[in-house]
Amino acid sequence: MRNFKEEAKALVSQMTLDEKISQLMHHAPAIERLNIPKYNYWNEGLHGVARAGIASVFPQAIGLAATFNPKLIREVASVISTEARAKYNQSKVFGGTEIYQGITIWSPNINIFRDPRWGRGQETYGEDPYLTSVMGISFVKGLQEGEDPIFQKADSTIKHFFAHSGPESKRHGFDAKVSLKDMNETYTRAFKRVIEKANPAGVMGAYNLVNGKACSGNSYYINQMIRNEFGFKGYYVSDCGAISDFHQGHRITKSATQSAVLGLASGCDLNCGDTYTHLKEALNQGLIHEDQINQSVERLFESRIRLGMFEKTQYDEISSDVIDSRKHQKINLRAAQESIVLLKNNGILPIQKGSYQRIAVIGNNANNIDAVMGNYHGTASSVVTPYQGIKQEDIHVEVKYAMGAVPQGSPKGWLEQPIREGVALAKWADLVILVLGIDNTIEGEENDARHSPAQGDKITLEYSISQKQLIDAVMKLNKKVILVNVSGSAMIIPNAPFDAILQQFYGGQFAGKALADIIYGNVNPSGKLPVTFYLRMEDLPDFEDYQMKGRTYRYFNHDIQYPFGYGLSYSKFEIKGISCTKKSCTLDVTNTSDLEGMEVIQLYAKYNESFDTPIYELIGFQKVNLKPHTTKTVKISYQTLMVFDQKGKPRKPKKEVKIFASVTLPSYDPNRIHERVKEMKKA
Amino acid sequence: MRNFKEEAKALVSQMTLDEKISQLMHHAPAIERLNIPKYNYWNEGLHGVARAGIASVFPQAIGLAATFNPKLIREVASVISTEARAKYNQSKVFGGTEIYQGITIWSPNINIFRDPRWGRGQETYGEDPYLTSVMGISFVKGLQEGEDPIFQKADSTIKHFFAHSGPESKRHGFDAKVSLKDMNETYTRAFKRVIEKANPAGVMGAYNLVNGKACSGNSYYINQMIRNEFGFKGYYVSDCGAISDFHQGHRITKSATQSAVLGLASGCDLNCGDTYTHLKEALNQGLIHEDQINQSVERLFESRIRLGMFEKTQYDEISSDVIDSRKHQKINLRAAQESIVLLKNNGILPIQKGSYQRIAVIGNNANNIDAVMGNYHGTASSVVTPYQGIKQEDIHVEVKYAMGAVPQGSPKGWLEQPIREGVALAKWADLVILVLGIDNTIEGEENDARHSPAQGDKITLEYSISQKQLIDAVMKLNKKVILVNVSGSAMIIPNAPFDAILQQFYGGQFAGKALADIIYGNVNPSGKLPVTFYLRMEDLPDFEDYQMKGRTYRYFNHDIQYPFGYGLSYSKFEIKGISCTKKSCTLDVTNTSDLEGMEVIQLYAKYNESFDTPIYELIGFQKVNLKPHTTKTVKISYQTLMVFDQKGKPRKPKKEVKIFASVTLPSYDPNRIHERVKEMKKA
Repeated sequence: MRNFKEEAKALVSQMTLDEKISQLMHHAPAIERLNIPKYNYWNEGLHGVARAGIASVFPQAIGLAATFNPKLIREVASVISTEARAKYNQSKVFGGTEIYQGITIWSPNINIFRDPRWGRGQETYGEDPYLTSVMGISFVKGLQEGEDPIFQKADSTIKHFFAHSGPESKRHGFDAKVSLKDMNETYTRAFKRVIEKANPAGVMGAYNLVNGKACSGNSYYINQMIRNEFGFKGYYVSDCGAISDFHQGHRITKSATQSAVLGLASGCDLNCGDTYTHLKEALNQGLIHEDQINQSVERLFESRIRLGMFEKTQYDEISSDVIDSRKHQKINLRAAQESIVLLKNNGILPIQKGSYQRIAVIGNNANNIDAVMGNYHGTASSVVTPYQGIKQEDIHVEVKYAMGAVPQGSPKGWLEQPIREGVALAKWADLVILVLGIDNTIEGEENDARHSPAQGDKITLEYSISQKQLIDAVMKLNKKVILVNVSGSAMIIPNAPFDAILQQFYGGQFAGKALADIIYGNVNPSGKLPVTFYLRMEDLPDFEDYQMKGRTYRYFNHDIQYPFGYGLSYSKFEIKGISCTKKSCTLDVTNTSDLEGMEVIQLYAKYNESFDTPIYELIGFQKVNLKPHTTKTVKISYQTLMVFDQKGKPRKPKKEVKIFASVTLPSYDPNRIHERVKEMKKA
Repeated sequence: MRNFKEEAKALVSQMTLDEKISQLMHHAPAIERLNIPKYNYWNEGLHGVARAGIASVFPQAIGLAATFNPKLIREVASVISTEARAKYNQSKVFGGTEIYQGITIWSPNINIFRDPRWGRGQETYGEDPYLTSVMGISFVKGLQEGEDPIFQKADSTIKHFFAHSGPESKRHGFDAKVSLKDMNETYTRAFKRVIEKANPAGVMGAYNLVNGKACSGNSYYINQMIRNEFGFKGYYVSDCGAISDFHQGHRITKSATQSAVLGLASGCDLNCGDTYTHLKEALNQGLIHEDQINQSVERLFESRIRLGMFEKTQYDEISSDVIDSRKHQKINLRAAQESIVLLKNNGILPIQKGSYQRIAVIGNNANNIDAVMGNYHGTASSVVTPYQGIKQEDIHVEVKYAMGAVPQGSPKGWLEQPIREGVALAKWADLVILVLGIDNTIEGEENDARHSPAQGDKITLEYSISQKQLIDAVMKLNKKVILVNVSGSAMIIPNAPFDAILQQFYGGQFAGKALADIIYGNVNPSGKLPVTFYLRMEDLPDFEDYQMKGRTYRYFNHDIQYPFGYGLSYSKFEIKGISCTKKSCTLDVTNTSDLEGMEVIQLYAKYNESFDTPIYELIGFQKVNLKPHTTKTVKISYQTLMVFDQKGKPRKPKKEVKIFASVTLPSYDPNRIHERVKEMKKA
């Protein structure tokens, strides 16, 4: 058994001080006399290798979460690291990696999707810490674990530690005020669990301060919480430019040298940026010790050795032919299919091919590549939009497209009257499929989403006036109308008598193909919402308020539009005979319909303590496939039942905990949310 | 025979003063008691009905010019007005038109493409006044003339009168200094000729001043030149906001009222904008007479009656089914094919299908919709990019894509290292097709092209560093390499031993299909450059200098890269036996090759006066199709031979004029430009 730690120590001991400092930044130069090629740590792979040319473009992370399928997400992540390896192997010919060519992947984003306005919420696994943990664990394992018995396939860095969820416009100077209760009950839970269960190679600190302290510049956060409490063994990396934010944005230090010292001394090993060049000066001034530098360089080289960067590995044979291969495309399409959530169906779905002769696919997202890709994406070899998917599926009827509307935040300009063309096309049609919502130009990272009114964030969840007018005009025509909402976050879906409603998160290169597969019943929908769909903007707390109270299904007390975990099937499922032990519940689930389908059995806990707890919360789930009229006995393990008091101390619940098992019932009434959760049995 | 003028007079006489004033702006409201529906004059159709939803998206105007095929451009324009009628008919159901739904089309743009940096040069027919006239005449006729014996199919407005060619960033306050010689010899020639030969319904004034006078606010320009000298019978319209530019941009008036008075009193009938609302006030102050208002309203209503807006016409039956129909697609594809210019071929082209097993299509424009559309475009029902076109053509071999490079002006950001992927793919391939150049986000109208460094204009014609590096690296691999330059304007093409070079202007929805047709020899290339390709930036005069001296092939004395009118074929052509009368030349043209092909026979005149004249200039051309080893006798009429003295006075040439007939010879040496023009015979 190799001891990578000792090997790293031996290697680093041969480096000069300057060499060591140079290795503490993301674009580490070569050290030729030690046969160390240059290496750029910065790579992104939320839903495919991003920004490095052709790659599988999977559904955006929020869509992967909607699959509620940890096995599938692990396959997805494994494809991502395979393609990253192919690109890394390609880069070796050029003498080392450049940005986005490495095998240290700064994914997944396991922040909690605290507020639906956050532009980067699409990168997360939604609003629930348990779901986020489960998906995060699978993703990290999928990225990191490969066939080589000695070497790790790729490094996963979980991010952004912690309480990072907007506003994008303020992130370099923002101080998130977080109670100890919310910290433990919500913001750090997924980090803790993913570190414990999946051993990610890296943790990335957030841009923002938390309670006045820098996330990449505070020893309590990094050394005490992450390393000591959560048991993290890898390297801690700053978000890009976050160290220079200390003096330039947050102004908690007075100079670049002070920032570099604060970062390194707090345990942040790798500086994405250049501020650590000042460590030499800091050392000369006696502000840090060389030992501190050694420790961080050793952590980084332990990882590089474990990745086999200086030896032959089984992964060296992965060539670029694997990129976007048939095999990868199959997994991709399945992820796209399972990520679609059926929100309403009066029986119109699934559609029989040829049963409508004139199909109008109308809307700003009907044929819009920006509503397919999601942020941090690679280049797809080809893309199928919803319009194209439906046209390619139902080939013997007429399928036409019109834009019909412009979304929130659409630039003023020449696209002034698409509604009329949309309405005229709807008149012509016997089936109207409205594909509305928002896109990648409206929500995204700071400055990336060029039509965002708030540097990436949304200021409203409402449809645009143009979209509402289109819906009004089309509904007056008394046609069959299916609404597809495309977004990376919860929207407020207009209240109109649609025959069916589908939610598609940014679906990746096969978005339109997957949508057609669902609409035409080639695939039975099985996605579930990873976020609550709210009814009213005014029900939301202030965007900058980091209290969880009044946010997400766990703490939200008003009526909602669609709950977390919700999603219909073309089949019908029933649960019976639940019994629970202290670690798991066993139950019988029956497909009572004539159609094979998948259902996600969800376990929720409801506490009854004297202090505030979540109203109810997910503690376990399992996705099962059932043939028509069959029953399966399913055993679902659940997380340790735990409540947190006002000081953030975890406690065993003192009073009775009720455990509910839930499937999505077709009779769901959004105004009576708790009826969705059928009370079954206390633990 | 109807007298539309008298009918308009009678109709207008029933209007109140307020009603009349309201009709002088582009969004004319309804006058219900007179059964006049609301009507928005603003529509665009440079290369397809723009910004009004699905429409045929033809090659951009500069590409249409490259066809050197006036018959084809007339068919294109006829499709455009048919589709505009379809959209207009659709809009009637809604009680009147909105913007971009009318049949008054503010196209063509017959400005001279004076400087290759101009972002809107792509909208023009290039740098030559004669070619611009011929294409303009065909386009106007194609738009306006239809089957109805009484009513006009659509109105064409030629624009922008005059001397309008950048900078985009200054157009609302710029004064173009134009000599009388250049005015007559270059800037106004196409306007004069198109008005004389095609009777366009409208003329649009430019934003800029010319010699201190406003183009929509100067009676000499509008009444004396346009109406009296050129014989224009229609309505004069301001560019949008150009009347308010008088006080806000140019500051030649002090108030909106003064601007309105200057516009109307100078003969500008229609205000695109709202400034003419101040005419009421002006009338009350005695600054204008009601007669002046009447005259302009009458001109506009004469046109609306001629268009049949208040009666039944044969055009009312045109339904939206014609939009992007098979018939229209056929014309579109042909335009795209004929617009491609073969600049170099060492014999590699055309390619036999299957002769290369691994084809790499690499470049920022290989799979880029922004390099297909051109500005002022409609929505294409589907688009074929170069990569897709080649993949769909050569279906039994492997065709792969990589971006490979970023163009000039590309935003800094995450696309940082595409070169390596491009080079790796080139290594894999046995044929490399580089598709480089720029796109719609880099050159375009003021503020439209979001990556332009100069609000739509270019600051260089050079390839980007990234593109040059890609070329260098790929050429070192010793592969077969074809370069496709995509742009709406002349670029400086890097000097490398490409096996072939093709120029594709923004090619419309079938751009990639047409390119594949040329590369695989389904179609023999026949496009010719409508602009000079220069060798060096430093050879160009200052962008803001409106002197023609030193610009375009007519006045440029340095070496160049490729001349105006140049374009190779897979066939070889020879001209013999030329004889000319005072109006035409007759000659024999022979296809000496084994391949059927089209060639453009071009007649150029060379004057020999004591004052400055163009070095040589196009006076006539004809595109002919020839079967292998056949000869045709071709008669080409040419324009009246005319020179202009320093005062801009037209004169019959006093000395001998030499007329040359030219075809593009494969042996062309760009350093000896005048050898291209084979001297044949003086007139």
